[in-house]
Amino acid sequence: MRFELTKDFLEKLRQAIVEENNNWIIEHIHELHFADIADLLDQLSNEEAKYVYFQLTPDEQADVLMELEEEIRDRFLKSLSSKEIADQLENLDSDDAADILGELSDDKIQEVISQMDDDEAAEDIVELLNYDEDTAGGLMQKEFIQAKLDWSVSRCLVELRRQGEEVENVYTIYVVDDLNKLVGLLSLKKLIFADTAMHIRDLYQKKNIISAKTSDSSEDVANRMYKYDLVSIPVVDLQNKLVGRITIDDIVDIIKEEADKDFQMASGISDRIESSSSVWHISRARLPWLLIGMLGGIFAANVIAGFTNEISHIPTLALFIPLITAMGGNVGVQSSAIVVQALAKGNDHFDHFKKKIIKETFVGLLNGVFLASIIYGIALFFGNSTLGFVVSISLFVVIVFAGLFGTIIPLILNRYKIDPALATGPFVTTLNDVLGLFIYFTVGALLYNL
Amino acid sequence: MRFELTKDFLEKLRQAIVEENNNWIIEHIHELHFADIADLLDQLSNEEAKYVYFQLTPDEQADVLMELEEEIRDRFLKSLSSKEIADQLENLDSDDAADILGELSDDKIQEVISQMDDDEAAEDIVELLNYDEDTAGGLMQKEFIQAKLDWSVSRCLVELRRQGEEVENVYTIYVVDDLNKLVGLLSLKKLIFADTAMHIRDLYQKKNIISAKTSDSSEDVANRMYKYDLVSIPVVDLQNKLVGRITIDDIVDIIKEEADKDFQMASGISDRIESSSSVWHISRARLPWLLIGMLGGIFAANVIAGFTNEISHIPTLALFIPLITAMGGNVGVQSSAIVVQALAKGNDHFDHFKKKIIKETFVGLLNGVFLASIIYGIALFFGNSTLGFVVSISLFVVIVFAGLFGTIIPLILNRYKIDPALATGPFVTTLNDVLGLFIYFTVGALLYNL
Repeated sequence: MRFELTKDFLEKLRQAIVEENNNWIIEHIHELHFADIADLLDQLSNEEAKYVYFQLTPDEQADVLMELEEEIRDRFLKSLSSKEIADQLENLDSDDAADILGELSDDKIQEVISQMDDDEAAEDIVELLNYDEDTAGGLMQKEFIQAKLDWSVSRCLVELRRQGEEVENVYTIYVVDDLNKLVGLLSLKKLIFADTAMHIRDLYQKKNIISAKTSDSSEDVANRMYKYDLVSIPVVDLQNKLVGRITIDDIVDIIKEEADKDFQMASGISDRIESSSSVWHISRARLPWLLIGMLGGIFAANVIAGFTNEISHIPTLALFIPLITAMGGNVGVQSSAIVVQALAKGNDHFDHFKKKIIKETFVGLLNGVFLASIIYGIALFFGNSTLGFVVSISLFVVIVFAGLFGTIIPLILNRYKIDPALATGPFVTTLNDVLGLFIYFTVGALLYNL
Repeated sequence: MRFELTKDFLEKLRQAIVEENNNWIIEHIHELHFADIADLLDQLSNEEAKYVYFQLTPDEQADVLMELEEEIRDRFLKSLSSKEIADQLENLDSDDAADILGELSDDKIQEVISQMDDDEAAEDIVELLNYDEDTAGGLMQKEFIQAKLDWSVSRCLVELRRQGEEVENVYTIYVVDDLNKLVGLLSLKKLIFADTAMHIRDLYQKKNIISAKTSDSSEDVANRMYKYDLVSIPVVDLQNKLVGRITIDDIVDIIKEEADKDFQMASGISDRIESSSSVWHISRARLPWLLIGMLGGIFAANVIAGFTNEISHIPTLALFIPLITAMGGNVGVQSSAIVVQALAKGNDHFDHFKKKIIKETFVGLLNGVFLASIIYGIALFFGNSTLGFVVSISLFVVIVFAGLFGTIIPLILNRYKIDPALATGPFVTTLNDVLGLFIYFTVGALLYNL
């Protein structure tokens, strides 16, 4: 039942494009779901994709366009004339149309808008372009169903039919007063089974209405929809007037993007990149943290330089430098990952600061004792008890401190409204490298009485 | 409009519980959204939470129960009698009821089931308990709306009213044939506006029906719903008979969990933990990777031990051990993070293996040249050109190789069906430590002619 994209199919399609065998293309493509068609076009050259795209019906074109990969869609749109883009926009939901326009230059946007035939749609899009793309206003669409408090059920059904034409998925009807202020919700199910003589004011739900303000951040809206299990959320302006709605599919995108962003940030990548991004773009996104890491390495060299005397006396001290730095880094990353996740979930009603630190101290003590004992055991086995003692004592101290730093740094960053995921990356690792070496050599100097 | 949980409110609530001031509790709690009530109960002791919980209406109880944090819900349920649990289950959706039962012991499950009054609900739950919780069968609920092909619109509306009573959110009506096999979909909107004399067979959508099999993995179902922008998906058995549906709220949970799991795995945490997990649980989840990291450190010590001769001649060689290992680790984590994300998205229709490696080589060369030049410049400034040359040459080689390992290892793991996120953690870091040191000291030995 589901389509599997094969090399074979792709070759046949390319052949059909070369031969301009439109019958073959239409017959084989129309069967597919638009998300599969988009996957297919992602694999073609721009010229090939364009050829296939214009064999689709306008509705199919709109659906496929929004499913293309972003870089491929941008390239595709750049190869279209303003009039062609305007035609595409008229079949899209207003939020999608605004997203696509937002990628173009200001001049081009004006040109495209002026070429649109549907003035109302053009107005909606222009309004949406005013909002920052990371806010509820930037996410919302102008297509939604609203009912007035004093409408009867039968009037509402008539209006629903009229409004419903351009709204693809009707989840909930938003109820507004005479001033267009949001006052409640009405489920489609409830409307259908109501007596047609009843009025909306007798049916609608007015308690616990969750809405978003146009200026709310998209992350905020995503968390709210997630927390309250919403499939769509009404968006209101500063006067509480209903201006749009956001549907769950856009929110799922944001949840995925947020998770990707955190994962990348924790991995030391400073700009959002895809595996399809250019070599240049990937290099640049990775450089900042590598530079910080290198700075950390130079710091670490300075720390060790302070102990060259000890190293020249006991050269074997140098052997465990990587063990100490690696363990400090690992523990730091582990503990900060847990804090970052808890913060991302907003599990922080009250001041858990102290509680987290106490817990991390216990975890550090437990793991520290365990691992330090193992390394001491190994050293005894090889008959080097002094070095073993130095390594195990300092490993223990490093594990406890690295865990504490890994916990405290994201908490501090979060308090100053800096994304705590930053901390999980080379930041904590680098800091723990320097700290770990200092502890290690200090303990070494003390125990060897140097 | 939204509720903000304050310490003050919590204290007043506790006071009301002590005074058994039920009027205060009911008045202040009933106003709240169930997700907020759950947040509130999460903050109370088990006895306090129980007291408030039983002031709620049965419907509110069901909603609140599913929003509690898992550990708190488990503790809460354990303090209830079998009869009390059975009463709670009857108000829950079948999938939620099965999830809750699944947490209990087999004996307890039987006891609870036998105490349920609604036989049909009990049967549904027992059926759902048969499925693995990580499959579509384990996720689905038995509450959905179905219509037969030969029904008229008016008959369908009557049935809808009957079936609809226990289905909370109606997104789509599933259309089945006489054998109960899924043949298509019908939107509620289309049904409402259809001529009542028409039949379902004239109205329903039969093309591009996306469904899930009971045995499909939940990750698979999540990807499918995400790809095809679905709000609900019908679940069929091996004979294509309709047996349930999965709604988007469950999928959002899975997407979040998957992202969390990958983030934790990449951070070297081997078992799913929350910041609320016990010290013991957190320690155990973190130990495996720390042991591997320690093993890596011992390996690294062995590598360095092979070069003690060089270190005793040129002790300053030891200074840059942390720089080399840190940079190898950072580059490895960065490159594997990109591959892991691309793999998680399933962006791998064909064999991109070679392409990814070539790209990573170029990124490595670019960043390697840049960073190696900087470090050489710094060394020249401090007048130590030989050591600078050793560090910069080996840094360059380490960056290129670390990037390649970071790219290749997750690809190989993925090919052998091992979660590639494993690679991003201490695995790549540890490997790159050892490799980097070997390169560094070999280059050092060569250039110093030792």
